Amino acid sequence: MPSLIAPPTLRGGPVRPSTSALRALGPDEVSLTGGFWQEKQTLNSEVILDHCQRWMERIGWIGNFDRAANGALGSDHAGIEFVDSEVYKLLEALAWELGRKPDADLEFRYRALVARVESAQEADGYLHTSFGRSGQPPRYSNLEWGHELYCFGHLIQAAVARLRSGSDDELVRVARRLADHVYGEFGPDGRDAVCGHPEIEVALVEFSRATGEPRYLELARILVERRGRGLLVPDRFGAEYFLDDMPVRDATVLRGHAVRALYLASGALDVAVETDDSALASAVAAQWDNTVARRTYITGGVGSHHLDEAFGEDYELPPDRAYAETCAGIASVMLSWRLLLQTGDAKYADLIERTLLNNILASPRADGRAFFYTNTLHQRVDGTVPEEDEINARAQSSLRAPWFEVSCCPTNIARTLASVNLYFATATEIGVQLHQYGDYDVATNLATGQIALEVRTGYPFDGTVSVHIREAPEAESSVSLRIPRWAIGRAVVTFNGARVDCSGSTVTISRAFRAGDQLTLDLPMAPRVTHPHPSIDAVRGTVAIERGPLVMCLESCDLREGHDLAGVSINDRVGLTETVRGARVHAQSAQSPNPDWPYGHDGGFTAENAACDVELIPYFDWANRGPSTMRVWLPVATRPDH
Amino acid sequence: MPSLIAPPTLRGGPVRPSTSALRALGPDEVSLTGGFWQEKQTLNSEVILDHCQRWMERIGWIGNFDRAANGALGSDHAGIEFVDSEVYKLLEALAWELGRKPDADLEFRYRALVARVESAQEADGYLHTSFGRSGQPPRYSNLEWGHELYCFGHLIQAAVARLRSGSDDELVRVARRLADHVYGEFGPDGRDAVCGHPEIEVALVEFSRATGEPRYLELARILVERRGRGLLVPDRFGAEYFLDDMPVRDATVLRGHAVRALYLASGALDVAVETDDSALASAVAAQWDNTVARRTYITGGVGSHHLDEAFGEDYELPPDRAYAETCAGIASVMLSWRLLLQTGDAKYADLIERTLLNNILASPRADGRAFFYTNTLHQRVDGTVPEEDEINARAQSSLRAPWFEVSCCPTNIARTLASVNLYFATATEIGVQLHQYGDYDVATNLATGQIALEVRTGYPFDGTVSVHIREAPEAESSVSLRIPRWAIGRAVVTFNGARVDCSGSTVTISRAFRAGDQLTLDLPMAPRVTHPHPSIDAVRGTVAIERGPLVMCLESCDLREGHDLAGVSINDRVGLTETVRGARVHAQSAQSPNPDWPYGHDGGFTAENAACDVELIPYFDWANRGPSTMRVWLPVATRPDH
Repeated sequence: MPSLIAPPTLRGGPVRPSTSALRALGPDEVSLTGGFWQEKQTLNSEVILDHCQRWMERIGWIGNFDRAANGALGSDHAGIEFVDSEVYKLLEALAWELGRKPDADLEFRYRALVARVESAQEADGYLHTSFGRSGQPPRYSNLEWGHELYCFGHLIQAAVARLRSGSDDELVRVARRLADHVYGEFGPDGRDAVCGHPEIEVALVEFSRATGEPRYLELARILVERRGRGLLVPDRFGAEYFLDDMPVRDATVLRGHAVRALYLASGALDVAVETDDSALASAVAAQWDNTVARRTYITGGVGSHHLDEAFGEDYELPPDRAYAETCAGIASVMLSWRLLLQTGDAKYADLIERTLLNNILASPRADGRAFFYTNTLHQRVDGTVPEEDEINARAQSSLRAPWFEVSCCPTNIARTLASVNLYFATATEIGVQLHQYGDYDVATNLATGQIALEVRTGYPFDGTVSVHIREAPEAESSVSLRIPRWAIGRAVVTFNGARVDCSGSTVTISRAFRAGDQLTLDLPMAPRVTHPHPSIDAVRGTVAIERGPLVMCLESCDLREGHDLAGVSINDRVGLTETVRGARVHAQSAQSPNPDWPYGHDGGFTAENAACDVELIPYFDWANRGPSTMRVWLPVATRPDH
Repeated sequence: MPSLIAPPTLRGGPVRPSTSALRALGPDEVSLTGGFWQEKQTLNSEVILDHCQRWMERIGWIGNFDRAANGALGSDHAGIEFVDSEVYKLLEALAWELGRKPDADLEFRYRALVARVESAQEADGYLHTSFGRSGQPPRYSNLEWGHELYCFGHLIQAAVARLRSGSDDELVRVARRLADHVYGEFGPDGRDAVCGHPEIEVALVEFSRATGEPRYLELARILVERRGRGLLVPDRFGAEYFLDDMPVRDATVLRGHAVRALYLASGALDVAVETDDSALASAVAAQWDNTVARRTYITGGVGSHHLDEAFGEDYELPPDRAYAETCAGIASVMLSWRLLLQTGDAKYADLIERTLLNNILASPRADGRAFFYTNTLHQRVDGTVPEEDEINARAQSSLRAPWFEVSCCPTNIARTLASVNLYFATATEIGVQLHQYGDYDVATNLATGQIALEVRTGYPFDGTVSVHIREAPEAESSVSLRIPRWAIGRAVVTFNGARVDCSGSTVTISRAFRAGDQLTLDLPMAPRVTHPHPSIDAVRGTVAIERGPLVMCLESCDLREGHDLAGVSINDRVGLTETVRGARVHAQSAQSPNPDWPYGHDGGFTAENAACDVELIPYFDWANRGPSTMRVWLPVATRPDH
């Protein structure tokens, strides 16, 4: 059965608020055409999607649905409680991928998978392979850890992706039946309860937007408002872990489990926007501000604790114990994207860029067949090589692993890369805003007519971005360029060769554009030294090197034989030069003494230093050359007393 | 029924190797007479012992034994799987306490508790309240996490304490039946298996020493040798967590779960000593060396990870995420004590002193009614006040909690303080060695006759230690004094007023002592600046202040109104003076800027500084004045460029 074609009014990109400063473009409006980002998206379509599906077939996670359908599933469910969600995130990835580039084979694969999921849906709409059967816990018997509504949320998000990319199909109907079921169970007349892992909130608002069904928004609002009243039984991590210790509108900073906190904040903002709850929207915006100011790694990664995968205290950002989970980075982009659409403030696009390039892209291996779950900023030991063919309990090595027992990250990467083009540009009634830089085309309708433009650049390695207008309305329209924070005051913008003022975080050219008009943005790409705030205790006495939007790192494979990463320090004042993709820096390598007690009096420990220039590479690209050690924050050599 | 009197040959202190450099003294040979340590031991006898027993009565952990005896116990067992061990650690504490100071009421309490434990022992010797009954898992069905042999080990150690302090009673007989049962189940003809948590190894060797039964030693040897061959199913923490990834004799440093690693190393050393396995003994000694050199906090605490309560990599010692579990400190003292007895090397007594004073003593609150489970070196937020009447899942606050769901630490403190006097001095055929300083008396028999001496001091706050000989053999004997590492070359020793050479880590006076002879040790107690090794990334650019054997800390309650701990830095070159128990230092307090992004270019962040002298207190004494923030490692103010 062919999919119905969704009406054009439903199409668009991820997140379509009924009112917002900016409008997300759909897969038919913005597309990558080459370069860095197209390589990543192609890696996803050619390798990662298939990798995820093969793993989930092999270890029975997709088979759970078949067995549920034919009555053969019970206590022998494959995988942990929330593996359904991985199948749904793959479906979402496939939906965006099909929206981006229709493909009959992929469409067939997608529909076959949807059919298997649908076959497991029960008569009342409930759909979960871990609960309710003989030998399984009853439905909703473990809201703290069961992840039932969390899984539903991911199914619903896949349906939203399908609607937004122009198809109204079986998956959408499955999602409707499921959402209706949840409304009955947890809605105004249902139980006074929430799921241990937020996710359905954001999905329900988006589904309400995509279907026009107000009950889904109502349910999302209820679920957001319910949380924070101690409805979940806390275990050793406390109620904060679940964000159940205070209402989301009362928090001043993101805290607790990082992915939970960011999914919830995204859902809360969506609810606030749709219900015109400016107090709630302001609370979420303030949480973003305070989290970015004090609880975010230089890579954009968040989460300082391995124990509870949680935010730490303000300025608690240990590089070697950084959790910086890939999924938390993705969740951070979800929140920043919503705030960007709502406000148009370039600071949100800045963080999206930083997080995409330096946290999220660090997860997949260059060949797309292995992933980091956590993204440390300092690897002390090279460790062992994970088996390419084995599930990893949780990576212990310096290398990426092909799959995990809790494998939320690979499928999250898949859905993010399949839709990453949609985060590059937005539109308003009168213009287009370019937030991210790469090779891509934009074509969309403004109030005054069609605008089409081409963006071409060697970014993120090269700083020149060319924007070529191919088509524009007769009337005045605008093109806006984000000036990244690190380039403000140093970027140069020209329009048809003439300098344009660009002192702020955004440059907007407003005029009656003509085909052939040309904007150029030149960003200063020389490597630069970045100092940490003195309250970040864990990196005192170190600096990071950034180059354009990229955080650099020093990986042990770039050291000469006999030099140990632990002994390298740099002088932060001199000797920083650019390489094609990275930087080179004057350094010194010490053979540190190895005393029998590492705490000394009167002057401490002295070491013999040898000069040693080192090459730095983009952080996202580390660990692609075998086991290694690595650090982002480089100790600054103590200056000799004069 | 009165206890049998154990023969004098069985008496002694903790650990009585059949051959060793030094002999542990028993509770009848060394006793505290006043001062700092007697206060701590009195706090234990008057408050902590009772606190532990009341909690375990109240929440049914002792009641488990009664219910097991009368057949009323099943799936409703109170507490987690290994709460039996807390009752046994309390019994061990009571045994040492009774050995130290006989008391009819306490003896009655002890015997009543032993009777309740005994009543739960099954006909074949098995004794555990969590396994084997209807509604419970079968015996030995979960060796990874069940902690059965771990609990048995603690029961056996209580029996050893009883034997060593001169009584051979019902508890000893219960332990014998249990050890015989374990020999059958896990011995040469038993299953090829080990317990997930080492502990029984050390207990069995000690029990073999105390009873003369060689099978217990044989079983301990087998269990030590079996581990490291992958007999336990690893979960997310990997086989290293259980020390099951390599034989203990092949490891070069302690790793994995800190308490497990240290208990196992202690048991392995005991096995090595009794079986004359010098390779195994050398391996353990090398592990100690490497762990002290690279994986130990300045407080003596160990364990850098909250997630798996484990050692980190070399030099991975974050102060704010220090786990430094109280039990790991106690386990470290157990291992160092064994190595001290085996070798006589003062470095082991140095670490015992550091760990007792700066890690273990930090756990109990000044009033003995609350405890730290972990012992952080940097508290960033003051947090909430734990309820005095509620079990703590795991302390989230800056304050100590009265009891925990996993409450291994309070009872471990109890047994350690009850026997702490036994770690102060040892004897050989020809002399007495004074390892720790406090007010105590020693009286023991040397080969040449009785020696008795009194040690008096205001240590650890005052540096003068007086040793008064009360009685000595006619023939030459010796008295040795440890010179703490930090005092080597600066300590002064006099004998009857005359200076004695003391350039090394031990001063030994050998002569025919006479009653009235007087030794004096003067230790330099001025506060000193301690620099961390440059490889300890987490404390780069900071120093600690030590004063005598005590690590100092800055607690927020000692700051003037309006000064924030996070903004304080010190100049490490000037202005350090002594206070009665601590130190005072010239500091500066900054109002750090609070930027919206905490990573800045070109010079970083500048702040207004105000001079602000601060008082430092002993680390062990922090968090006794309400919620606070605290740090051991103090940032060094950046020196202005000349």
